[in-house]
Amino acid sequence: MEKVTEMKQPAALERGARRVVILGATGSIGKSTAEIIAGARGAYRVEAVAGGRDPLALALLARELGAKFAAVADPAAYAQLKEALAGTSITPAAGEEAVIETALRPADIVVGAIAGTAGVRPTFAALSAGRTVALANKECLVCAGAVFMRQVEATGAMLLPVDSEHNAIFQALGGANLGTIEMITLTASGGPFRTWTREAIAAATPEQALAHPNWAMGPKVTVDSAGLMNKGLELIEAHHLFGIEAARLDVVVHAQSIVHGLVSFTDGSVTAGLAAPDMKVPIGHCLAYPHRSRTAARRLDLTAIGKLTFERPDLDRFPALRVAIDALQTGQGLPTVLNAANEIAVEAFLNRRIPFREIAFIVEEACNSALASGDAHEPQSISDALAVDHCVRERSSAFVKQRAASCAKVH
Amino acid sequence: MEKVTEMKQPAALERGARRVVILGATGSIGKSTAEIIAGARGAYRVEAVAGGRDPLALALLARELGAKFAAVADPAAYAQLKEALAGTSITPAAGEEAVIETALRPADIVVGAIAGTAGVRPTFAALSAGRTVALANKECLVCAGAVFMRQVEATGAMLLPVDSEHNAIFQALGGANLGTIEMITLTASGGPFRTWTREAIAAATPEQALAHPNWAMGPKVTVDSAGLMNKGLELIEAHHLFGIEAARLDVVVHAQSIVHGLVSFTDGSVTAGLAAPDMKVPIGHCLAYPHRSRTAARRLDLTAIGKLTFERPDLDRFPALRVAIDALQTGQGLPTVLNAANEIAVEAFLNRRIPFREIAFIVEEACNSALASGDAHEPQSISDALAVDHCVRERSSAFVKQRAASCAKVH
Repeated sequence: MEKVTEMKQPAALERGARRVVILGATGSIGKSTAEIIAGARGAYRVEAVAGGRDPLALALLARELGAKFAAVADPAAYAQLKEALAGTSITPAAGEEAVIETALRPADIVVGAIAGTAGVRPTFAALSAGRTVALANKECLVCAGAVFMRQVEATGAMLLPVDSEHNAIFQALGGANLGTIEMITLTASGGPFRTWTREAIAAATPEQALAHPNWAMGPKVTVDSAGLMNKGLELIEAHHLFGIEAARLDVVVHAQSIVHGLVSFTDGSVTAGLAAPDMKVPIGHCLAYPHRSRTAARRLDLTAIGKLTFERPDLDRFPALRVAIDALQTGQGLPTVLNAANEIAVEAFLNRRIPFREIAFIVEEACNSALASGDAHEPQSISDALAVDHCVRERSSAFVKQRAASCAKVH
Repeated sequence: MEKVTEMKQPAALERGARRVVILGATGSIGKSTAEIIAGARGAYRVEAVAGGRDPLALALLARELGAKFAAVADPAAYAQLKEALAGTSITPAAGEEAVIETALRPADIVVGAIAGTAGVRPTFAALSAGRTVALANKECLVCAGAVFMRQVEATGAMLLPVDSEHNAIFQALGGANLGTIEMITLTASGGPFRTWTREAIAAATPEQALAHPNWAMGPKVTVDSAGLMNKGLELIEAHHLFGIEAARLDVVVHAQSIVHGLVSFTDGSVTAGLAAPDMKVPIGHCLAYPHRSRTAARRLDLTAIGKLTFERPDLDRFPALRVAIDALQTGQGLPTVLNAANEIAVEAFLNRRIPFREIAFIVEEACNSALASGDAHEPQSISDALAVDHCVRERSSAFVKQRAASCAKVH
């Protein structure tokens, strides 16, 4: 039987410092990674870092971590980065190709934490070079999952999930055979609208959607969480990561965000991954895998929490999850379409151009339209996936304009 | 670093039927084992069965399972067993030596489910022969844990835990290194007295103690559960089974008996073993290990349960747990003493000779007296452990008589 998660040993350095590359170093995951490394007293050596648009923060991090190479994605930020690194031996670089160069620097583990579609090419480059990648970017697997997993297979690379749900499931799997698994369950906090009525959710404001009860995350993923679209995207990721079909993937709403994922086996046994809601737990797990390090991550105290609750998600009040499950079940290129349309819709919502209820509607419309026009083929390459992504964004932007106008007219 | 649970492959038969010996076939675990085997359509072949005192039930089971050999522990039951097996090719046998012969029949897995001290010698025999043993008997590890684990080490045998807590922890460990573990937590249902006052518990009747909310078990273990002594015995088992010291073992009261055990790692990750309260889950897991079979065990539905609660055990209301933890921490031969004194005290309680509160008192007194008299040495052999067990039982019986008389005088 096929192994879901092979317990491969990383390429090198069981002794001595493990070489780390951080893609997306100035973001939330990147900063937590840097904290863990700084606290690990020589267990890691940072080879290179890449960031998006903040050359000063990147330079500071590169200095603190003793990196050899620092790349900023924005080409216009080169001079600033170079100046901020003056007097060090750190090589500055800028532009998309420089980020890919970062991904290809010698490393035992690459932390893939660039947010959004910008993360797809650099992460793919690292995997193509056979690297072990701790993946925190959602778009890679949602937008081009099959392409990514084929490349992992072809190059012998390893994907370690940083997302708390997938990391928990990875740990709960313990290298189990696919054939022994009855169900993989991801938990959802239910977000700020867990107990709201359908009507209240439909009319929610950006401020309300951004008030997540358990996790501090970026605005895009926080809005995704509020509508449970985030859980839909994670189902798609889990499908690729663990090689398991939609029928054996489930979502349970668990307001406390303590049990992050569960694996149910054919003999009635269930294993689960738990942790305090602190991203340092999965990041620390990935950095040290297959070993474990001692980290300063928050510890779980079940008796202090006292009570854990579990309920079925309500697909009527949270239509985005239904739309995502439909896309996962239909397969082909629909997850690519879903992801692109969702980014455009969430952006429009955050800019107050459309009400919350329109997000799921716009995404569903994009999926239906792609199916109807025969544009929902499974991407065959990264370029192919990114072309579909680009095209859907354009179409969805136009559709958002139309909906925004009609919504404005109604109100 | 030492492996806590080595993922050794069983000796033989990855293809074809796995040969099973069932010790304690007519008890509750034995019957569940038989049910799983009957439902597994040729995955298992029962080589031999042994039972205690019910030759007719044993003969019926041996016929149904197609065993080659059936032994009843009670020598006086031989004629009845022989008659009940007439016309079959099943060899009947009786007496203690016949049970040990059963344990030594060729087998890929021996289910060690003889209750009480009677299980110690046959289980030890199976392990001495290098067998994989699915252990459901508590006394082996509580009464002679160090001796058992040394024998496992020496013979290359494998111990698989059938107890739901230890089985859950075994699954949650997934072969982890001892050095990566911060804490192993066993859950306790809290039994029927979970919410009772200290005074009400002290005066509880056998009927009240036997009304366990989650599990149907024999009277001895049910009374142990009511006072949390059972959890203390399980801590001692866990100490030996997983090779982990008392300071890294914890108990949490979890009234729903769904999460059976948890492993907390140095990086903040926690893995847990869950299941519906159905002994078919851990039995099925052990029978198929390291593979998994599909069984008819009850499935866990967290959303149907809705809520899981966790609280710290109250050592003031449940002094038996405190006494057991003390014995575990002191080590030496105290667990042997604890176990023997507890059996005598529970029997006296069930016979209404002493009130519930006296159980913990009598056990603590036996431990103190053994320490004071220098009789608390670590048993060096099975005979040594059984000699201590015998001696403590005699002393505790005498002490019970004394306490019973004084309690009767008071009331």
